[in-house]
Amino acid sequence: MKIRVGIIGLGTVGSGVLQLMEKHREFFFRDLGFDFEITVLCSRSRTRLDHAKTGKAAAGNPALTPAFLTQSPLELVSRPDVDVVLEVAGGEDAPKAWIESAFKHKKHVITANKALLAKHGKDLFPLAQKSGCFLLFEAAVGGGIPIIRTLQESFIANDIHGLACIINGTCNYILSEMTGKKLSFERALKAAQELGYAEADPSFDIEGTDSAHKVALLASLCYGKYVDYASMSVEGITTISAIDIQMAEEMGFAIKLLGIVSQDKTGNIQANVYPALLEKKHQLATVDGVLNAVFVKTSSVGPILLTGAGAGKLPTASSVIADLVSLARQLATGHPIAQGMGFFSADNRAELLPIGELETEFYLRLTAVDQPGVLAKVTAILGEEGISIRALMQKPEHDPEHVPVIFLTHATRNAKVSKALKRIDALDIIQAPTQVLRFYR
Amino acid sequence: MKIRVGIIGLGTVGSGVLQLMEKHREFFFRDLGFDFEITVLCSRSRTRLDHAKTGKAAAGNPALTPAFLTQSPLELVSRPDVDVVLEVAGGEDAPKAWIESAFKHKKHVITANKALLAKHGKDLFPLAQKSGCFLLFEAAVGGGIPIIRTLQESFIANDIHGLACIINGTCNYILSEMTGKKLSFERALKAAQELGYAEADPSFDIEGTDSAHKVALLASLCYGKYVDYASMSVEGITTISAIDIQMAEEMGFAIKLLGIVSQDKTGNIQANVYPALLEKKHQLATVDGVLNAVFVKTSSVGPILLTGAGAGKLPTASSVIADLVSLARQLATGHPIAQGMGFFSADNRAELLPIGELETEFYLRLTAVDQPGVLAKVTAILGEEGISIRALMQKPEHDPEHVPVIFLTHATRNAKVSKALKRIDALDIIQAPTQVLRFYR
Repeated sequence: MKIRVGIIGLGTVGSGVLQLMEKHREFFFRDLGFDFEITVLCSRSRTRLDHAKTGKAAAGNPALTPAFLTQSPLELVSRPDVDVVLEVAGGEDAPKAWIESAFKHKKHVITANKALLAKHGKDLFPLAQKSGCFLLFEAAVGGGIPIIRTLQESFIANDIHGLACIINGTCNYILSEMTGKKLSFERALKAAQELGYAEADPSFDIEGTDSAHKVALLASLCYGKYVDYASMSVEGITTISAIDIQMAEEMGFAIKLLGIVSQDKTGNIQANVYPALLEKKHQLATVDGVLNAVFVKTSSVGPILLTGAGAGKLPTASSVIADLVSLARQLATGHPIAQGMGFFSADNRAELLPIGELETEFYLRLTAVDQPGVLAKVTAILGEEGISIRALMQKPEHDPEHVPVIFLTHATRNAKVSKALKRIDALDIIQAPTQVLRFYR
Repeated sequence: MKIRVGIIGLGTVGSGVLQLMEKHREFFFRDLGFDFEITVLCSRSRTRLDHAKTGKAAAGNPALTPAFLTQSPLELVSRPDVDVVLEVAGGEDAPKAWIESAFKHKKHVITANKALLAKHGKDLFPLAQKSGCFLLFEAAVGGGIPIIRTLQESFIANDIHGLACIINGTCNYILSEMTGKKLSFERALKAAQELGYAEADPSFDIEGTDSAHKVALLASLCYGKYVDYASMSVEGITTISAIDIQMAEEMGFAIKLLGIVSQDKTGNIQANVYPALLEKKHQLATVDGVLNAVFVKTSSVGPILLTGAGAGKLPTASSVIADLVSLARQLATGHPIAQGMGFFSADNRAELLPIGELETEFYLRLTAVDQPGVLAKVTAILGEEGISIRALMQKPEHDPEHVPVIFLTHATRNAKVSKALKRIDALDIIQAPTQVLRFYR
């Protein structure tokens, strides 16, 4: 069976797709019966198009020498010699128009684009279903980790009680470097940038936005409802300092940027992104460097962990091609079915519980003047707000002018802590905003 | 779409399947469009059949009140009101006949039975293909961990360089208890038996046979060839003693029973089961208790780890039902395709490299009399056989009569070590067979 593929985007992932297709094409044909032909390539860059046409990948395999090259995605999706569109270009709003047009032309779409899906999935998934087209996206979350297929298919006989994930390699690398090499945030970020793990403008990663996009998709999958990333509480890692890492270490904890999704017994859903203190013996605590991991709490299987490369050329391309083969298997039957078509829509929206309703233990690091009476004032406020203190630590050696005072609380409703901190940070003995971290148990 | 299911076996897994079907049946119907009806139940036990008919599961859901109960598997598979057979009874040879008969009657089969598939898969998979029937088996390896689907589908654009797995919960529990609580093998085994983690006759688990069945299936999946478990080298954990665990701990290693599959650059496949020393920072080293884990080295995604419950009622039932839904999706198209039908056969057999050809580092614990000259004799033999010593340790405090002497070797061809040990164990200064453990790097 011949399947004609058009690729939009010849950057890292696009060239990875060409590379893996070159390597595995013969196996797909011989063992699975799928004759994938890349008929159209689209890139903004004329140079990349020329290179793809004459480059190694194309030269070694006639089926990878596309008949048509274009700089227009809209032209690609409208061509009759394309059955499936691989959107690996990135962006948010422009790809939406391409994919809408692809569906209008009855093309199936595979995308690696989490930002697009987090923002426009609520419109694109229903449109896919209405058009009888697939919209597959394994590569959009967790790179090469098969978390989408696992949630959609393997855990079909499970309720998902919740999940916690390390889903942004940039942040995990920075925190791992801060921990392992005792670097400051700034130096660890610089190291990440030098290695290509962080962008020149890293804000999209380090402020938690990228994680939020992926967590919104995962939460949507867990509960079959549209989870709007814009209604999530999202914190990044920019406020984490060496002293926080050091204090966590001394207590036997690691600090990780986690995406956390949960559903309580009354059905309320939480989906948030924040840096959290994790016991070192927790399986997620040992996931270091650019690795990603998803820890899922299921009703039948219990807790399960998937760990691997969450980004990069070949891991992402591997998932794009797994989707392509999965789609081919559906198309081969002549009657593609609904799976992966319309899994959430704007009119089936999850109302997220605000993070203020969440109950967690807290790590509060106050920066106070070194005066008698500081502790009395702070503990009085915490007591008045009904927050129970589990431990208190001072690190006088750190900086005699600004003594870090660390409070650990028992599990407390987050709204109470926000209220208390407003009062505490307004005290004139407090010299900088209090650092607030949660524990993940 | 109505799908009529017959279940053979109402033990732990069978009752788990009924329980999950009761819980999720409405979702399958409402959201996926599959109306699963359990039409026939088969058990050797009349009591269980009666219980299933009148028990809670059936009472709450008319579709789970089977029209027909039988004690004959062959009757079940031949009935016209069964589309899919779930074989969750266990056994090796008897279920082969049931499944052959099922295929003759054009029934699809889902099984959780690794022993059956390891022994008879080479005949059953080709027969499934010839009959146009599915034979699905996610539950046969790793319980609730979706390793079969991941290898078959998610890693389709990967070569598998190798894998290492902790795939028998009984052994992992025993080794974890020996490590964590410093128990002897015998006491840890007894604890496992008391908790129901080990059978009254535990030999099938602790001698590595169960692991070998699963590893053979995984190796077959990795390389698309029939891997015969009988041609694998299989060692269990019965010779592991407290001193080995203690020495490994002191060196920063854990001892785990691993299934190890690898392919070298010339295409030679190794598949073996043996207890190995794993660096504590390796992701598999922290997988404790009855948990299972599969660590796969892939060409595109890189290393990836899946960890979770490898056995038990609901985890196993969860995978059986995931297969059922996956099958239903195929059937819904009207044209089921070949995936999962004929993945290996007797005439496409992998020739395994004998373990003698494997290169590993070794931990050798000799039990020698406390005499001068022992080390000289042993090191002379090791030298003559071309085995390079990395370290040597003695533990005189352990037992003054029988001093354990531990040699660590550099990576050495296993055949060399076997030859040297024959000579060493024949020395009259050696009082017990030398304990031989490999390192896994």
